[in-house]
Amino acid sequence: MVDVPAALSLSEVPGWDRDVDVIVIGQGVAGSCAALEAHRAGADVLVLERASGGGGASAVSSGIFYLGGGTAVQAACGYQDDPDQMARFMMASTDPLDPAAVRMACDDSVAHFDWLEAQGVPFERTRFKGKAVFLNTTECLFYTGNEKAWPYNEVATPAPRGHKVAGTGENAGAVAMAPLLERCADEGIAALYDTNVVALVQDEAGRVVGVRARQPGGVTLHVRARRGVIIAAGSFNLNREMIAENIPLISETSEPLGIPSNDGAGVLLGLSVGAGTSAMDGIIPTASIYPPGQLIKGIIVNKRGERFVAEDSYHGRTACFVMEQPGQTAYLIVDSEIFAYPEIETHRHTLVDGWETIPEMEAGLGLPVGSLQKTMADYNRDAAAGEDRLLHKQPDWLKPLDKGPYAAFDISFNKSIYLFITLGGLKTGAEGEVLDPKGNPIGGLYAVGASAAHIPRTGKSYASGMSLGFGSYFGRRAGRHAAGANWA
Amino acid sequence: MVDVPAALSLSEVPGWDRDVDVIVIGQGVAGSCAALEAHRAGADVLVLERASGGGGASAVSSGIFYLGGGTAVQAACGYQDDPDQMARFMMASTDPLDPAAVRMACDDSVAHFDWLEAQGVPFERTRFKGKAVFLNTTECLFYTGNEKAWPYNEVATPAPRGHKVAGTGENAGAVAMAPLLERCADEGIAALYDTNVVALVQDEAGRVVGVRARQPGGVTLHVRARRGVIIAAGSFNLNREMIAENIPLISETSEPLGIPSNDGAGVLLGLSVGAGTSAMDGIIPTASIYPPGQLIKGIIVNKRGERFVAEDSYHGRTACFVMEQPGQTAYLIVDSEIFAYPEIETHRHTLVDGWETIPEMEAGLGLPVGSLQKTMADYNRDAAAGEDRLLHKQPDWLKPLDKGPYAAFDISFNKSIYLFITLGGLKTGAEGEVLDPKGNPIGGLYAVGASAAHIPRTGKSYASGMSLGFGSYFGRRAGRHAAGANWA
Repeated sequence: MVDVPAALSLSEVPGWDRDVDVIVIGQGVAGSCAALEAHRAGADVLVLERASGGGGASAVSSGIFYLGGGTAVQAACGYQDDPDQMARFMMASTDPLDPAAVRMACDDSVAHFDWLEAQGVPFERTRFKGKAVFLNTTECLFYTGNEKAWPYNEVATPAPRGHKVAGTGENAGAVAMAPLLERCADEGIAALYDTNVVALVQDEAGRVVGVRARQPGGVTLHVRARRGVIIAAGSFNLNREMIAENIPLISETSEPLGIPSNDGAGVLLGLSVGAGTSAMDGIIPTASIYPPGQLIKGIIVNKRGERFVAEDSYHGRTACFVMEQPGQTAYLIVDSEIFAYPEIETHRHTLVDGWETIPEMEAGLGLPVGSLQKTMADYNRDAAAGEDRLLHKQPDWLKPLDKGPYAAFDISFNKSIYLFITLGGLKTGAEGEVLDPKGNPIGGLYAVGASAAHIPRTGKSYASGMSLGFGSYFGRRAGRHAAGANWA
Repeated sequence: MVDVPAALSLSEVPGWDRDVDVIVIGQGVAGSCAALEAHRAGADVLVLERASGGGGASAVSSGIFYLGGGTAVQAACGYQDDPDQMARFMMASTDPLDPAAVRMACDDSVAHFDWLEAQGVPFERTRFKGKAVFLNTTECLFYTGNEKAWPYNEVATPAPRGHKVAGTGENAGAVAMAPLLERCADEGIAALYDTNVVALVQDEAGRVVGVRARQPGGVTLHVRARRGVIIAAGSFNLNREMIAENIPLISETSEPLGIPSNDGAGVLLGLSVGAGTSAMDGIIPTASIYPPGQLIKGIIVNKRGERFVAEDSYHGRTACFVMEQPGQTAYLIVDSEIFAYPEIETHRHTLVDGWETIPEMEAGLGLPVGSLQKTMADYNRDAAAGEDRLLHKQPDWLKPLDKGPYAAFDISFNKSIYLFITLGGLKTGAEGEVLDPKGNPIGGLYAVGASAAHIPRTGKSYASGMSLGFGSYFGRRAGRHAAGANWA
């Protein structure tokens, strides 16, 4: 069991060192947005951040915001989208716990994009047309999820909704965080850095009314929050004990994405006052076979020699299915026409071998006799006809794999290096209010960003950008609500 | 922890009392079909059944087989279906662990229907057009799942696939089991009743080579199986310990459907030799609001006053969403135009009260101020326009709820009596071969029917008839495979 920090009663507080309306714990994207909205709604806000500066995991992320419904970028790049289509996609793919909150986020998505730009977050009016996991260029719009993958492409008109901030490199998230942190500073929102919240304080009725924090040099601080405490302290990606307890399918070769403070402190603070959690077993794993996109024309088989996921799925969806396969084993099979090495070397998809014939490959991979031969005969027949009857990979990615020699890459979940981020967190309502396991709000407490459960409960329905996109949106809502203001 | 019976080594067997090719444990629908196919493939088969006669839970079920792809009944009733559409529906709704097995079941579904009829299982060429949970008449074909519910109706052309056996009453399954048991008897398939398998026997290599069974009067029996042991012993519905361990969301008011021997013995036997399991937290709960169908024109809200599931979903899907709501609380809201009491009285959906106005109802139900008013204003606007933008309930079921007075039924998961069946079970391959957690087959062991994991992993994607339909099909496959014969 993971140790939960004990919550304090008022009698355990020697005195308040500071007294504010709203405390925001953590200054990543959700915390920054919460602080800005609470401040602008008239609240006296204090941000407490463990690191020596703001930014959080958001600043080392790839800087993608999932936004849609017809944003200025979508329009400039010639894509049709509307809130209904965005909501259809979200609903069909996520079976969300809180459909009303999802609908609001979709209805408000264009306005939220405009708000981000107004804060100075830069987005180009450009698109990237290829198949990418992330972009190192400043191009903005691209498909980052399962919008074009079956069955979602039949339920909602596909539109790209990944909006990447106009920065280069793998950590372009910093380019989004810089203006948000500048706005916080410009507007005089108080922030204490190197300040680690170690406990919540509850009054007699159980309402959260403040926090205890520690600073370097053994300083202990007690801060009162007259209106609310907003937990925006990130995920539990790096808490090995919480991972082991909640995510049995994780492999020893899996590696968490995140920063040291993604140790679950936010979730644990919520648990200390009786919060509920959701989707704690959910992760987005990734070890993409692409780029190059041509590898999507290969097939992925398990140790029974059978296909099990459409290869053009979002890489996180593909990875979830790999994780569930017998022995967590999977191979990417290609022929000489499409042969290439997967470009993202950090995943260590190793080339098993090359073979002249399919029966030799089947034997070389130790697959049951006839299994891969049947799978490839079926697939090649369907690919020639332009319709993948088994898994509905889209026609663009179909071609018979019949140009030997053949090769296989080992993409097993427990052999390759799958990166992951956790999806679980505190159970919340649409305004970020933290709920107990029965759904009753815990007075004075909010959770947003990766300290709260994501909308998708498994990586099968995640799309890149949903963390920053929805984290910033619900961060704003929580900020306004904590400050006592209505939304919109 | 649930006690798992210890497996025996050969040295613990004092001697074989009988020696056969294939042992089938349990004589419900899956076991009967397995026994028939193994016998017809030339194997010497012995059925061991705990009850004093065959039939199992199948014989007390409502007798629905999920079949499609263009069966004789579908054709006679004027419905178009084909294996592709059936597979599209199954794939989109279940994200199955084993897509290849699902595809085979769909491709073979018409032939499997013909086989069932050839055994004497009677199906009328009739259909029921209303919205029913089960039928007490002899009518055959009806919609039993989410085929017409969004988003599945957009992914696959809806067709009714519930094929109810031509028997009356709530336990029409007996009418399906009678001919199957007769065929077993006619063909001289040996069966021992009142015979309880208490342990599997493994050889030095770990292969399952026999069983130990007990009979009344303290008789112990050891039976050798030269080719295989097929576990067809039903679900763990009635094992309170396994339920508590695996299904945290279950409520004290939930009641399992099943017979006393659905105590998980089959799953436990598999675990004793290192089998893997799947979907152990999955259940199909049900406490349908319909019939009468007019109640589907009402809305279902949670304690936040928000809708969360399309009310025209399959009742098991609706129940799963109710189970996940805050406080597991939900209300069915109707106006005077559609008011009726839910007909299935065993579920005990109680009338909370009637109110003249929506604000009074909101207050009477203790919902947040304004919440139900907003929900109903939005819904009524959408219903008038014929499009449910939030949850996509189909237009047939949309009407503004504006004819006061209003009424609410409490359909909370922890207040009403939700019946449930478990979906989890042993992990198996397409031939019913039992797999270890890593997906490696355990030699000589098969599991079919409710002792194996179902294709749907949650009740959100189940349809009535999937237990008998797929249980009988994979039972047949396992029988042939254990006998050493290929399929088809």
